[in-house]
Amino acid sequence: MKFARIGTPGQERPVVHDGAGWHDLSPLTADVDGAFLATDGVTRARAALAAGTLAAVETEGVRFGSPVARPSAIVCVGMNYAAHAAESGSAPPEAPVIFLKTPNTIAGPYDAVTIPRGSSTTDWEVELAVVIGRRASYLDSPEQARDVIAGYAVANDLSERTWQLEESGGQWSKGKCAPGFTPFGPWLVTPDEADGADLAGLRLRSWVNGEPRQDSTTADLIFGVDVLVHTLSQYLVLEPGDVLLTGTPEGVALSGRFPYLRPGDVVETEIEGLGRQRQEYVAWAAESGARA
Amino acid sequence: MKFARIGTPGQERPVVHDGAGWHDLSPLTADVDGAFLATDGVTRARAALAAGTLAAVETEGVRFGSPVARPSAIVCVGMNYAAHAAESGSAPPEAPVIFLKTPNTIAGPYDAVTIPRGSSTTDWEVELAVVIGRRASYLDSPEQARDVIAGYAVANDLSERTWQLEESGGQWSKGKCAPGFTPFGPWLVTPDEADGADLAGLRLRSWVNGEPRQDSTTADLIFGVDVLVHTLSQYLVLEPGDVLLTGTPEGVALSGRFPYLRPGDVVETEIEGLGRQRQEYVAWAAESGARA
Repeated sequence: MKFARIGTPGQERPVVHDGAGWHDLSPLTADVDGAFLATDGVTRARAALAAGTLAAVETEGVRFGSPVARPSAIVCVGMNYAAHAAESGSAPPEAPVIFLKTPNTIAGPYDAVTIPRGSSTTDWEVELAVVIGRRASYLDSPEQARDVIAGYAVANDLSERTWQLEESGGQWSKGKCAPGFTPFGPWLVTPDEADGADLAGLRLRSWVNGEPRQDSTTADLIFGVDVLVHTLSQYLVLEPGDVLLTGTPEGVALSGRFPYLRPGDVVETEIEGLGRQRQEYVAWAAESGARA
Repeated sequence: MKFARIGTPGQERPVVHDGAGWHDLSPLTADVDGAFLATDGVTRARAALAAGTLAAVETEGVRFGSPVARPSAIVCVGMNYAAHAAESGSAPPEAPVIFLKTPNTIAGPYDAVTIPRGSSTTDWEVELAVVIGRRASYLDSPEQARDVIAGYAVANDLSERTWQLEESGGQWSKGKCAPGFTPFGPWLVTPDEADGADLAGLRLRSWVNGEPRQDSTTADLIFGVDVLVHTLSQYLVLEPGDVLLTGTPEGVALSGRFPYLRPGDVVETEIEGLGRQRQEYVAWAAESGARA
């Protein structure tokens, strides 16, 4: 099962895909958000689909927004692929490295991204995103993680490298929170559908103007999804609807092997079974606004 | 004018103080939140107070919650007092150092704080907090900052130093987001009331079990409030209701001069004109919950 939110920014309506087509989820919930997920929304949607009470929806030509509403937190894991740590000049971490993005960075998967004012080092990062379905605090084991996971999605954890690394005093968030810097979706895919490979070998890829950049698999994650959720829950409370970005593999501009993004570039990111994003990058202008 | 939220956690109601006493703000708004602040709530409250339409409220024995509802972001500035940077082993920063706390760390100013499971290095930090009243993105100058500030408050930016500094890979948020780690309030004080000293010399103090710890003034801020708001707006979008923590002065346990917090300790924090907090610290137990 897949969830999505379609329509103009700020006015998206919820839809659900049963394997055959999209259906209007509005009779069940006004939005795909933490409250919906925390109240067994996935189970209720499944029952409604089985009962045939959700009308089919045409999505041709319709904008897809972020598949979940703005979360209370975007928790990110850094340096979680060994080869990416190496290309960034770091040793693999001994424990998960955690940083945060502001929730208002979330954007739709196909929305144009404004390169921030003054930026010459905007960089892509395809990442497996985990969406939390139930409040999680002090989980007892990694095995409990699956109980609190609502599903998975593609994310692009955009970064302004100069702000992140050179003008930051070492704290990465400064280069991670520009407007539209977390293209998200297109879909929230439920674990039963995504876990075909038990998350252990999903291929992640990115392209710039059609040329390959990143190409790895989740088998290369240093800390896997269950370990991450368990670990994070020792340090903070994960809320329903929260987004966990699990880190990016090698192949970003920071490596020095590729140029940073410029106006007119097109970035595509894809994870096997979770869909593909596509964003055009545009120059900042005084009237540029955030997209959400 | 002061705003506050009183009542049991999650069910606070808004009140406003006109200099003589507290008044029920419920006829104007369900909450003191971003939506209220962004729609000229402060002006409307002032008009209602002048018209005498808000009933007096008794606050004796009533819990004060955070004076603003859960924000979309808590943006923190690190090492913003030279003497604190020195006691932390760092040089003063050349540009503001930014990190984030999860919004669900916000707690009431007098709520008990649970020392996190396994923590032996929980530390206090009194800070001047700025509450944003209007969306701010790419401000043109520090002078524009005042247009987007709704008011000021006391905050305690609690930190678990081992998690923040030793097990973090250098990213501080890991030790900043435990449940209840941002005691906030008691009041949101509007600029006209707080600006008697133009924020340039407000005394900040903290105590542990009645013994002095921090004692400094905002005159020692490396980057002042207006510069911070202007600078932050270049890197991210500040939303109405968001909270900016401007950094802490010297006198924390990290310095090595004082012991870290233990169950039974009482921390008080105070900023001249903005009120005083008091929290008792309690041991973690399996049934400990977050307070918001």
